[in-house]
Amino acid sequence: MASRVNDRSQASRNGLKGKVLTLDTMNPCVRRVEYAVRGPILQRALELEQELRQGVKKPFTEIIHANIGDAQAMGQRPITFFRQVLALCVYPNLLSSPDFPDDVKRRAERILQACGGHSLGAYTMSSGIQMIREDVAQYIERRDGGIPADPNNVFLSTGASDAILTVLRLLVAGEGRARTGVLIPIPQYPLYSAALAELDAVQVDYYLDEERAWALDLAELRRALGQARDRCCPRVLCVINPGNPTGQVQTRECIEAVIRFAFEEGLFLMADEVYQDNVYAEGSQFHSFKKVLMEMGPPYATQQELASFHSVSKCYMGECGFRGGYVEVVNMDAEVQKQMAKLISVRLCPPVPGQALMDMVVNPPAPSEPSFKQFQAERQEVLAELAAKAKLTEQVFNEAPGIHCNPVQGAMYSFPRVQLPPRAVQRAQELGLAADMFFCLCLLEETGICVVPGSGFGQQEGTYHFRMTILPPLEKLRLLLEKLRHFHAKFTQEYS
Amino acid sequence: MASRVNDRSQASRNGLKGKVLTLDTMNPCVRRVEYAVRGPILQRALELEQELRQGVKKPFTEIIHANIGDAQAMGQRPITFFRQVLALCVYPNLLSSPDFPDDVKRRAERILQACGGHSLGAYTMSSGIQMIREDVAQYIERRDGGIPADPNNVFLSTGASDAILTVLRLLVAGEGRARTGVLIPIPQYPLYSAALAELDAVQVDYYLDEERAWALDLAELRRALGQARDRCCPRVLCVINPGNPTGQVQTRECIEAVIRFAFEEGLFLMADEVYQDNVYAEGSQFHSFKKVLMEMGPPYATQQELASFHSVSKCYMGECGFRGGYVEVVNMDAEVQKQMAKLISVRLCPPVPGQALMDMVVNPPAPSEPSFKQFQAERQEVLAELAAKAKLTEQVFNEAPGIHCNPVQGAMYSFPRVQLPPRAVQRAQELGLAADMFFCLCLLEETGICVVPGSGFGQQEGTYHFRMTILPPLEKLRLLLEKLRHFHAKFTQEYS
Ligand SMILES: Cc1ncc(COP(=O)(O)O)c(C=O)c1O
Ligand SMILES: Cc1ncc(COP(=O)(O)O)c(C=O)c1O
Repeated sequence: MASRVNDRSQASRNGLKGKVLTLDTMNPCVRRVEYAVRGPILQRALELEQELRQGVKKPFTEIIHANIGDAQAMGQRPITFFRQVLALCVYPNLLSSPDFPDDVKRRAERILQACGGHSLGAYTMSSGIQMIREDVAQYIERRDGGIPADPNNVFLSTGASDAILTVLRLLVAGEGRARTGVLIPIPQYPLYSAALAELDAVQVDYYLDEERAWALDLAELRRALGQARDRCCPRVLCVINPGNPTGQVQTRECIEAVIRFAFEEGLFLMADEVYQDNVYAEGSQFHSFKKVLMEMGPPYATQQELASFHSVSKCYMGECGFRGGYVEVVNMDAEVQKQMAKLISVRLCPPVPGQALMDMVVNPPAPSEPSFKQFQAERQEVLAELAAKAKLTEQVFNEAPGIHCNPVQGAMYSFPRVQLPPRAVQRAQELGLAADMFFCLCLLEETGICVVPGSGFGQQEGTYHFRMTILPPLEKLRLLLEKLRHFHAKFTQEYS
Repeated sequence: MASRVNDRSQASRNGLKGKVLTLDTMNPCVRRVEYAVRGPILQRALELEQELRQGVKKPFTEIIHANIGDAQAMGQRPITFFRQVLALCVYPNLLSSPDFPDDVKRRAERILQACGGHSLGAYTMSSGIQMIREDVAQYIERRDGGIPADPNNVFLSTGASDAILTVLRLLVAGEGRARTGVLIPIPQYPLYSAALAELDAVQVDYYLDEERAWALDLAELRRALGQARDRCCPRVLCVINPGNPTGQVQTRECIEAVIRFAFEEGLFLMADEVYQDNVYAEGSQFHSFKKVLMEMGPPYATQQELASFHSVSKCYMGECGFRGGYVEVVNMDAEVQKQMAKLISVRLCPPVPGQALMDMVVNPPAPSEPSFKQFQAERQEVLAELAAKAKLTEQVFNEAPGIHCNPVQGAMYSFPRVQLPPRAVQRAQELGLAADMFFCLCLLEETGICVVPGSGFGQQEGTYHFRMTILPPLEKLRLLLEKLRHFHAKFTQEYS
């Protein structure tokens, strides 16, 4: 460092200085972070939107953001009950308004009672409002057929993202070959790869099996682990179920096998279950890792460490902007759990409106309450439409030559494989782009459709994919799928 | 690692396994984190509250939380205008209600227009809603007497905490003696020491001068920097102004000197200005680092790197639970700024209600608008009461023998020095406690008053302090100060 310092002093005497913080001197782990969902494609989409506003002529009139699982941005309407309760919490004068049902008022009062100074404006405990942690625990118990959940194992968070980062942060340790290795599915939700880069942990890829509708393959998991042992200390296994970007829903048998594997191999399990209500395919069903773990009995139930994540951003809620989430930890070492509580206390607390929303998610109106009927109808409508859109997506894509799309069993995405002609691959190479990035950029420029290239999520070498959400309104989605199909045909022709 | 793995396999055959994640195997940086504001004192306070609820007899009837700057938890009422606008944003059906003033409706509509799907439930850009970034930039310009601010240099955040952690995360690099060193004031707000521990950066203490009302002393800064150069690469200088926990407000001359120092020594400046509206003392005034920097002209104005932080949690707002904040970066390397944008995109976006609140803070009702009068009155009332409480605190403490309290010029805390009799220090030692921790615990057990020992913020060896917020309502605060004074007298007698 000494010479750099002297350089600076020298420069200083001339009144000129380099920056303290440059690409060369900044945190190298941060430099390595990539996050495709908001990467170059989105940047270009934003530029195009700007140009459209300025009146520049384009072959389309609007950008369709099918790049991110943001339901309300695509027109999904929030659940009335949630927003009514929240409005009363925000502005309690409304508690005396005749325009809100009784159960809405009771609910808002109950939440306010649990807040410091009876206000959403007070900090809460760092792990979240105790009453809400208890409500979450009861929700988990109901969901899991009565298997107990301890509120003290529930930590509310700033969206699931925050909780995932917190748990990973606890798990990262070691240097060189002893660095923590984290097994993640490929394709993955890129929060995982980004977090591992930021935390300087070792990413260990296991490939999902596209030929079996993106199922998790135990042999592949074993291969990945075996090979990783040479270069790191694998300690964590991440699973996303229902899957993003794959739309796959795991069977109970698969989950059991994964748990057995994690136990045998000494891996901490992280189960990302933010799409737990988003299951559409006949024969598919959501099984929580916690439930399966507990039903497997000892030693799994009593020893296997697990963290399971949920969020208000997905399912039928789509309340992404409120940043509500939670993690339930199971069989976590008590001392480590204290360390986790300490770590999150530095950030003070998760946003209280997000906590309040989570409370309503885990504790929706009961059948006897005035808001029940409307709540139920709104919820069903959202989920039924998503199911229809999942089906439509699979159908239209699979009618297109050169596109193959696995069934969208759950979550909110399709991840079709596209054949790209060799000349397109070559052209991309010349441009220094991944071939599917080139395809997605061309698609965007010509149709205004914004999807994310498979390379942002990971894929088998030599295959090309893109991720598209199923969130646009049904008729718009139909148009979009048609447009995409036509574009692919034209693109294929152009580069053949 | 190999032997551990074998141990596990061995144990596995017996059906018994150690945990994957233990104190020994967890992230050692996380273990080193300490956060006094929510440390053992708060834990004990919560237990006592539990006991009170269960009917256990105590020498007090309630716990008074003077440990954390949480205004609304202590009874401060939120600003009506803020909450009205937010309620309409949350539940837009209210836009047609006759019960809300026109400007409230216009404001809510304007915010909703800027949201995806016109809903708070959509993700926003990771740096925040562009319109709000523009409003923030205009606020900064007004605040700084017309000095321009670029909206693209403003990043909204999840409270100021989040933005501070993000900027530190960018700055951390190097190994061994090349590790990034960060200069922080002592006493400090413990977010800083906690963040540095978590990020494995080197904490470099510079002591504020208690004899000069906690002023920043340039000679001391120079000493700290000089000594630190042997063990790390000091690259960052943090300043908290107005000060937490000191209540000190920096003079313009001091700020100029700090900027010159940072420039000469090649330090990135971080200015924590979350208390910018909390200035009470006559003759004291808030000067933003940005303004002073710009007015100093080149080379400072054109080259010195600065990040300045603000929040909706403090000042007259006290909206801690919404987790709204921002950072403005000045003279940051353009490439690094792109890296910062990428880093925050992994967490998707700051909570949208917090962003909306920030928008109202930087863009309050104009004198011509219907909500102006009430807004102004509410704002003034909060600030006037805080000023009265600041004065009262200083007064009462300084009447007490053995307690010395500097003037609370700004922020929300007093940090009085207490004399502790040698026998108390000895008793604390026997119990393995810091002497001021022992004092604060005794105070809590006997009076229910919860304050944080000075050791949690840092202090000169051999001196003892505690931090107490000035937030309890005036009459309650008076009682509390009296109680504290009496307790100190009694404690002194008991251990003399
Ligand atoms: C699999 C998965 N996990 C976690 C998240 C994070 O969601 P949030 O932070 O909004 O709760 C997402 C968001 O898309 C996701 O798809
Ligand atoms: C000096 C200082 N900076 C930053 C913060 C963080 O505030 P928030 O994250 O609520 O904006 C606090 C909170 O007390 C503080 O005192």
